[in-house]
Amino acid sequence: MEYEQIATEAKDGILTVRLDRPDRMNAYTFRMRAEISDALDRADADDDIRVVVFTGSGRAYCAGADLEQGAQTFDATAHAAVTGEPEPAPEDFRDDGGKLVMRLFRSTKPLIAAVNGPAVGVGATMTLPMDIRIASSDARFGFVFARRGITPDGCSTWFLPKVVGIDRALEWCFTGRVFDAAEAHEARLVREIVAPEDLLDRAYEIAHGIAERTPAVAVAVTRALLWGMQSEPDPWTAHRLESRALHWAGQSEDAREGVLAFLEKRPPNFGLTVSRDLPDHLRSWPAE
Amino acid sequence: MEYEQIATEAKDGILTVRLDRPDRMNAYTFRMRAEISDALDRADADDDIRVVVFTGSGRAYCAGADLEQGAQTFDATAHAAVTGEPEPAPEDFRDDGGKLVMRLFRSTKPLIAAVNGPAVGVGATMTLPMDIRIASSDARFGFVFARRGITPDGCSTWFLPKVVGIDRALEWCFTGRVFDAAEAHEARLVREIVAPEDLLDRAYEIAHGIAERTPAVAVAVTRALLWGMQSEPDPWTAHRLESRALHWAGQSEDAREGVLAFLEKRPPNFGLTVSRDLPDHLRSWPAE
Amino acid sequence: MEYEQIATEAKDGILTVRLDRPDRMNAYTFRMRAEISDALDRADADDDIRVVVFTGSGRAYCAGADLEQGAQTFDATAHAAVTGEPEPAPEDFRDDGGKLVMRLFRSTKPLIAAVNGPAVGVGATMTLPMDIRIASSDARFGFVFARRGITPDGCSTWFLPKVVGIDRALEWCFTGRVFDAAEAHEARLVREIVAPEDLLDRAYEIAHGIAERTPAVAVAVTRALLWGMQSEPDPWTAHRLESRALHWAGQSEDAREGVLAFLEKRPPNFGLTVSRDLPDHLRSWPAE
Repeated sequence: MEYEQIATEAKDGILTVRLDRPDRMNAYTFRMRAEISDALDRADADDDIRVVVFTGSGRAYCAGADLEQGAQTFDATAHAAVTGEPEPAPEDFRDDGGKLVMRLFRSTKPLIAAVNGPAVGVGATMTLPMDIRIASSDARFGFVFARRGITPDGCSTWFLPKVVGIDRALEWCFTGRVFDAAEAHEARLVREIVAPEDLLDRAYEIAHGIAERTPAVAVAVTRALLWGMQSEPDPWTAHRLESRALHWAGQSEDAREGVLAFLEKRPPNFGLTVSRDLPDHLRSWPAE
Repeated sequence: MEYEQIATEAKDGILTVRLDRPDRMNAYTFRMRAEISDALDRADADDDIRVVVFTGSGRAYCAGADLEQGAQTFDATAHAAVTGEPEPAPEDFRDDGGKLVMRLFRSTKPLIAAVNGPAVGVGATMTLPMDIRIASSDARFGFVFARRGITPDGCSTWFLPKVVGIDRALEWCFTGRVFDAAEAHEARLVREIVAPEDLLDRAYEIAHGIAERTPAVAVAVTRALLWGMQSEPDPWTAHRLESRALHWAGQSEDAREGVLAFLEKRPPNFGLTVSRDLPDHLRSWPAE
Repeated sequence: MEYEQIATEAKDGILTVRLDRPDRMNAYTFRMRAEISDALDRADADDDIRVVVFTGSGRAYCAGADLEQGAQTFDATAHAAVTGEPEPAPEDFRDDGGKLVMRLFRSTKPLIAAVNGPAVGVGATMTLPMDIRIASSDARFGFVFARRGITPDGCSTWFLPKVVGIDRALEWCFTGRVFDAAEAHEARLVREIVAPEDLLDRAYEIAHGIAERTPAVAVAVTRALLWGMQSEPDPWTAHRLESRALHWAGQSEDAREGVLAFLEKRPPNFGLTVSRDLPDHLRSWPAE
């Protein structure tokens, strides 16, 4: 797939995905979703990629859904008429931003959002299934759906309260107001604020902290476990699932290397790979 | 219904509900619960009301359950003997504070708590299903149940950890101690502290931020979605439910108006009403 | 059971459990787990014990799993070969740290962690089902599993995000880095930082605040309710379970005493005991 709306670069084990429509403030389209999904498929299959960093080209991160279709932007019937695609039944319709979020969610590689400017609507909600969010002091955020007359997208009604609490999520969605990086930080939507010129370096520093010290397979299983447990109400079930993973991990070459390297006070040299060694039952587990 | 224990006032789209037994520090009674429920029924049916603000008359918000029945205050058998009502079986008994909380929970209008003074016992727990809590610097809070020899009420064992975290909730409930507005703010029980004389103005400012910029129906659906997702462990289910709402909202007149107003850089003029246009399947959804 | 790896002391209603292998930085063993479980069984059965405080001997809290078996430390097959115990099927294997955590979880007495030094691996995860965590300024924390090539233990994939949020939990587990008390406090892993020499006094002060003001049985039920509700996605179920507890508690002698003491402005004198008066259906409820 040729990318028209994103730009990607791989270096030192990190894939950078840049939303790349700077003249449109990187506004979101169905095409952009397909390209991001494709880039994630490649990253999952490429053992040289350990972490994926998302950022935006130009002054915005992502200004939200592209409104070039005007009043009918969010109208599934109108969309079907324009594209000639069959119109889904109401119960079969799936929000496109939600499709992107569910794809991000099941990544086997950690995802870092480096929010460089305005992140509004789906531009904000697409960062929620990412694992770590940092922001430039130029960043702005807005869960503006109600101001456009619509309801929240991107599965954010599930993700947002897990990050910032139910009361903050309600107020942001009720008012639809745009707020700055300081409020995002105070509410724990982002873990830190960085000067604009240092944003990507800081994202890479965090990424290297993952890639250089911990093994790809244990990280992939850890990611699936921690997110997956958000869907497991019961600690006994969690204990059983976690034990299953530990049974596998404890016998792995990486465990032997990890313990020996620690005892020998030397850097570990982990050998397992996601493409070859991640057991199917731990791949995206237990969330699917 | 004539109100004896609350006072209500509607103005500029905002209903203010004042707990109004100042000589008893607005202590909670079954009658007060019935009156609040009635006021909420009216607010849900009245399209001129966009937001409901709760506060207390006099120096307290609500001092908790009225203890005029003394040692038998919390005894369901004694209560049945006094009132002549049939005594419920233990498994059919329902905590009255919990009934109030479940009624507040399913409101179609956003609820703001403006805590003007002590909020203790059910006076504290009744604020938890409200969407936004602000406090006067005179406010005090206490989850004092254990000090009275009883267990928590108002469904607070479910709501409180969602707001302040499980560890803080445990400590407050174990000790039953009363704490000040600063601690409530630090623990995120309230989102901000306001000078006593500015408390209601600030609550109205937040309310107007909702009423003037966002449409009643999208806000009602957003409220049902965000609270409802607290009961949906699984993001795939959330994605499906959210998509169903977006399918409806995206085709609504409000969506057309919201997008056009944004593109034309003018204030929106939303037309849908909760009483007429809120689809039944999105009314209190998916929580019931 | 004679204790070799922990030391216990009971005083003024508080049981102190000290992890006691200071020459090994209190490294965790299966034997240590058995001894802690035994101490908890005794505490649950002893009505003179109201609160349990955990701390470590010497300069560490607990340095994690004892690595004396080297590269095979986490290998269940190797472990079975060494001990002669039958090897469990992968689906029957249970992480030993998780067994400890589930035992701590169902305590009828509040648990306080007084973290005096490094708490790493299972040394960190064992504190998560405790109700209140305070730390010395000398404390260090690390969810280091991935650095050893393994996945998280101690049911921490369920507990940790409830305490510090999903994004912080992910980053700590991805990087496996060790961090200081200030970061633990900022992320709300611990509720306060205390000078090393004041750590135990502060833990006892909190414990006395529970033991002297609130009754043992209401506290045990409150603990089971608050933790149990973490497994109840639905507020209506929570309302029903909470009502069942209130129906019992409201008719108890402790409720009569609690209300009368308050009205008479005197300290309460609660009489019910966990061993005799805690109803079976509220004992560890609704979590089992």
